[in-house]
Amino acid sequence: MSQAKPPYSAVARTSQEMSSQHVRFAHEQHLSEATDIEESELFDMRARPTETMEAADNDALYYAVSLGSRRRTRKGRVFWVTVLSLVVVSVVGMVWLYSDGISWMQRSKKRNVILMISDGFGPASETMARNYVQQINGLPIGYKSPLDEILVGSSRTRSKDSLVTDSAAGATAFSCLMKTYNGAIAVAEDKMPCGTVLEAAKLQRGMLTGLVATSRITHATPASFSAHVTHREMEDLIAEYQIGNYSLGPVVDLMFGGGRCHFMPNTHANVSCRMDARDLWSEAQAAGFNTLSTRKQFDALDSHGSGAAKALPILGAFASSHMDCEIDRDAAAQPSLAEMSAKALGILDAATKKKNAGFFLMIEGSRIDMAAHTNDPAAHLRDIIAYWDAIAVVRKFVEEHPDTVLISVSDHETGGFSTAKQLTPEYPEYLWNPRALEHVRHSIEYISYKLLAQPADDQEARYKYVRDTVFADWLGVKDSKHEEIIAVAKETESIRLRQLLSDVISNRAQVGWATHGHSAVDVNLYAYGLNAHLLRGNQENTDIGQFIVDQLGLDLGKISGKIKADRVIQGTHAIKESWLGRRDLDALDHYPAAH
Amino acid sequence: MSQAKPPYSAVARTSQEMSSQHVRFAHEQHLSEATDIEESELFDMRARPTETMEAADNDALYYAVSLGSRRRTRKGRVFWVTVLSLVVVSVVGMVWLYSDGISWMQRSKKRNVILMISDGFGPASETMARNYVQQINGLPIGYKSPLDEILVGSSRTRSKDSLVTDSAAGATAFSCLMKTYNGAIAVAEDKMPCGTVLEAAKLQRGMLTGLVATSRITHATPASFSAHVTHREMEDLIAEYQIGNYSLGPVVDLMFGGGRCHFMPNTHANVSCRMDARDLWSEAQAAGFNTLSTRKQFDALDSHGSGAAKALPILGAFASSHMDCEIDRDAAAQPSLAEMSAKALGILDAATKKKNAGFFLMIEGSRIDMAAHTNDPAAHLRDIIAYWDAIAVVRKFVEEHPDTVLISVSDHETGGFSTAKQLTPEYPEYLWNPRALEHVRHSIEYISYKLLAQPADDQEARYKYVRDTVFADWLGVKDSKHEEIIAVAKETESIRLRQLLSDVISNRAQVGWATHGHSAVDVNLYAYGLNAHLLRGNQENTDIGQFIVDQLGLDLGKISGKIKADRVIQGTHAIKESWLGRRDLDALDHYPAAH
Repeated sequence: MSQAKPPYSAVARTSQEMSSQHVRFAHEQHLSEATDIEESELFDMRARPTETMEAADNDALYYAVSLGSRRRTRKGRVFWVTVLSLVVVSVVGMVWLYSDGISWMQRSKKRNVILMISDGFGPASETMARNYVQQINGLPIGYKSPLDEILVGSSRTRSKDSLVTDSAAGATAFSCLMKTYNGAIAVAEDKMPCGTVLEAAKLQRGMLTGLVATSRITHATPASFSAHVTHREMEDLIAEYQIGNYSLGPVVDLMFGGGRCHFMPNTHANVSCRMDARDLWSEAQAAGFNTLSTRKQFDALDSHGSGAAKALPILGAFASSHMDCEIDRDAAAQPSLAEMSAKALGILDAATKKKNAGFFLMIEGSRIDMAAHTNDPAAHLRDIIAYWDAIAVVRKFVEEHPDTVLISVSDHETGGFSTAKQLTPEYPEYLWNPRALEHVRHSIEYISYKLLAQPADDQEARYKYVRDTVFADWLGVKDSKHEEIIAVAKETESIRLRQLLSDVISNRAQVGWATHGHSAVDVNLYAYGLNAHLLRGNQENTDIGQFIVDQLGLDLGKISGKIKADRVIQGTHAIKESWLGRRDLDALDHYPAAH
Repeated sequence: MSQAKPPYSAVARTSQEMSSQHVRFAHEQHLSEATDIEESELFDMRARPTETMEAADNDALYYAVSLGSRRRTRKGRVFWVTVLSLVVVSVVGMVWLYSDGISWMQRSKKRNVILMISDGFGPASETMARNYVQQINGLPIGYKSPLDEILVGSSRTRSKDSLVTDSAAGATAFSCLMKTYNGAIAVAEDKMPCGTVLEAAKLQRGMLTGLVATSRITHATPASFSAHVTHREMEDLIAEYQIGNYSLGPVVDLMFGGGRCHFMPNTHANVSCRMDARDLWSEAQAAGFNTLSTRKQFDALDSHGSGAAKALPILGAFASSHMDCEIDRDAAAQPSLAEMSAKALGILDAATKKKNAGFFLMIEGSRIDMAAHTNDPAAHLRDIIAYWDAIAVVRKFVEEHPDTVLISVSDHETGGFSTAKQLTPEYPEYLWNPRALEHVRHSIEYISYKLLAQPADDQEARYKYVRDTVFADWLGVKDSKHEEIIAVAKETESIRLRQLLSDVISNRAQVGWATHGHSAVDVNLYAYGLNAHLLRGNQENTDIGQFIVDQLGLDLGKISGKIKADRVIQGTHAIKESWLGRRDLDALDHYPAAH
């Protein structure tokens, strides 16, 4: 009989847990009735089948135990009790296991959802980064990246008005579960605001919320969770939303990223990119935000102790515009994506420790995309590896917090990137060369900025600078050709200069680019933790949002109703018709690492 | 009690089925001892846990039933019987359900494995085809292709000697579970032959085997399952293997594809591409092969009735070289991939109906790759859709035959293809244009052949031909530009002509190509049917072969041992060093549709 004990006690324990869990639900439902939290439909629905099962199960156990202790039975009763026991236990066991342990988790109320977005990261980018890490470090062919290990499917990326999405429509698909037009920040096709999963998690579930990005925090992806404007260019207005200047009030508890300039009044010319004189930085402080702008302030943040909860809400903007590409990043000046992710997780976890609600956190590897826009394979690679580091941090958190799910997905591919490039009309060899990316020390964005800032009059000095500093030191190119150096040294126009530098690296690595924009290819979908298996297969980007809504039992329609009168356009900000082309160049003027 | 009955009877039925199944195994094992089929280890191992479970289960049922009928019991016995019943039934129920119904299927002996290979089909190719079909037919955005519905993960494609594989090393990874050098046909890195899943399925399981392709049947992918040569160029020797001229004898029961020329003696100059005078076609007939070379003969094949089994073995080669691209195919002359798949399934199913063993079938959409080599988006698209049609046929078969698994995977991506192409230095719009592919009526391969065969002396006639026939009729281009027409009309060199034609279509569709060769990107992995879930996630290409080996309980090492003395090189056939470049052009000389 010793063999028989473990399954029996396992089943019994399960039943007890179910019961106590159910009591906790009832208690929580009672509590939540006093707030704005609308959980009753969700949990009522899910709890119902369990109630029936539990009642039956408890009866059976009662009979079994009482039979054994009384040691007296009537004829026939033995038979029926046996049959009943068989039936009840097998039904409970089957239902429990058939659900793969899910239903148990599903009924656990406190949940964390971490949505990670690798902006502009297509299937070829993952292969490239894995090939690189495997080859450079001499790892086995079967080496798997932190993402490879959690692949569950793919996400379809098209927007409402094009087969090729931009990041605004791409993020709005995740945040509002809605296909909209390219450029739309959490507004529908008709330009009416749509409630986001972040807003609903905050207001309907009482969860804490966070946004982490390496772009300006006002940029398309984080904006689409926390603001509602008709065009992504309107970052001044987005910043106003993000500190609570709309009908929902402040909904983001933690922001880490770049983009301080959109919070600064244009009276401070050097640090502002606002069109107006509003000082949102001070407004945020007045509203209670803990504002941070330096690495030192970031490091000083308590992410584990009792101070964590008190630090919220936090607005941390560690660069005037975008944070630096990983390849250019000065670790003494800016935290990495992994560091920001770890700090955000620590704070949000500590601050929700004694609460009934968890947190929603969006983490974006923003610079993966921007490097691909510049067709810069080395910068693209390093930001992917930095993203992997962040994934590893979050996966560890999920392992330690089983009430948490991590989703990692891209909004779209950028660059039409491929791990192949034909260099001559002759039939190409089958290879690409990771070693060509190994010694690149700066992004093309950085190098082009530096080059354009150099004096052009002393041609000999410039030639030497290009050969020795740009090619040898920064690009790690030891076999530079005279014509290449001349071409780069002579070029004074930013777009053409970047193209030349891209060719220098891409031709040696034999990797190809079809565009400086985006492509339509499905992107990889990764998930880990609570109910991650529900995301398997080929999904629409809106399905990712739907998964979050289902996990948290949100009603985005109710949020949309509350914000329909909010200001989604901005009178003082002229929308550039050609915005898609401008963004990349604008960034140049603010690139911190190159100053 | 009425509520309780179904689960109870379900468990009881299961036990009975398990028992009778087990008896059948024993019987089959006895039978197979008389043959060369080595099943005992596999099924012994799998049957063991069941035996124990069944014994315990039967005891418990016996007690339960006998208790009820005798209606007499001693004190204490009631308690123990109850506990024992609870335990046994819950254990059985849990094990049964935890395995998700797998173990039951796994122990079912008769299985079919269908491995479909979409040669040269990358992630962007699937997105492109889906976007096209959705837009041209006005389907909802959420439309899923027959492949989208069964996505389970991705496959890593690199070979032993390069990050970018060729089709020979790619197929050998599937067939031998082995990373080898580019160009290797089922030989290891040391050029020793390696046993394939097809050979082992035939010889160790007594299964029927089939190869279906739209390339020459002697081409790299089908060859890697049925021949062992040190270089893919050696198609003369591959043909000898395929009709049984090696130590294993004939192992392929059914072949449908192109490539008749490698079976014909070089004394028949017009129909042969052999270097020698061997008449393999007659040798095949003498060996019992039913040889087919026309659509009429294909149609006459009985694939359902009693004649199906008698028709085997079959060598059907419906083109001298490769079969036509789908976009050029004359349905009266050549069957489609879906038709060949349906016929192959019908015959193999009928021929295994009364046998204990199922079949292994490899189906390749070969021309998807070749169209991408030519950077021909329209031909690429139509061959993908033809492959979807074949997938739909096979999926239907799997639905009707639950002992069957379908795997669909690519060996590699071709073309560095992307659904984006930047046409000017200005920042590109975010779009690609499926409509530009809608009215293309012929492949670039076909058109270039026709153009090069045209007289070049009458320039005016040639200009009109290019404008009216090539651009307007065949490419469906109504907005052709004078310079484009002139460039195409003047070009006399095949590679440059094809590039011009590729640009005409690709620029209008705004789809990009990085190479005429292959790229390294992971390819999509699809699976459906028996144990398909075991293939989830990011897999090595060798893992696909491993899955087949596991499903069928094969021992490839034993096959390798038997063939180690076989001839893997061919004295009379000079291996071209530049073979990779030649293949595409060679095909031109034999392209059937253009004659």
